[in-house]
Amino acid sequence: MNKKYLAEDIAKRISIKKYEAYNFIDLFIEVALDNLGKGRKLVLSKFGTLIVKKKNKKRVINPINREPMIIPPAKIVKFIPSENLKRRFEGNG
Amino acid sequence: MNKKYLAEDIAKRISIKKYEAYNFIDLFIEVALDNLGKGRKLVLSKFGTLIVKKKNKKRVINPINREPMIIPPAKIVKFIPSENLKRRFEGNG
Repeated sequence: MNKKYLAEDIAKRISIKKYEAYNFIDLFIEVALDNLGKGRKLVLSKFGTLIVKKKNKKRVINPINREPMIIPPAKIVKFIPSENLKRRFEGNG
Repeated sequence: MNKKYLAEDIAKRISIKKYEAYNFIDLFIEVALDNLGKGRKLVLSKFGTLIVKKKNKKRVINPINREPMIIPPAKIVKFIPSENLKRRFEGNG
């Protein structure tokens, strides 16, 4: 499902126009991105947490030539599913 | 930031009531969960994709006693950040 599909489903459930639901979803994403950009993590209860995680530089040994090398610091975006989400979807397939 | 915080930010930007924005976020999550439950992946352009992934059973060797063993099939929830999200947040820290 994409934004269009979600917007249609939401519009049906609460009797609003599809474009209104679509615009809201877009705004929701924009606000979330803005705040992630300011270093805030996004906590959606019953769903999960999205964080921009800093990974420090790391000293490792190059497995090929056995020389020590440094992996530079980096940022990654990480999603941690909530307990509710895990209970609902994870587990024995 | 949590749902309350997001709702306040959204309400400010488009002049709606906080509880309206809050209810919309809740509905958005509910609809997304419903559709994930039906096996549909959630694709939010400019943000990312959430999928419930099936992992098949796997035959491995127990590293302690060297006996062959089977890891049962399982489901996991996985978030794949969009290129936009990666460009914005990932990279050199």
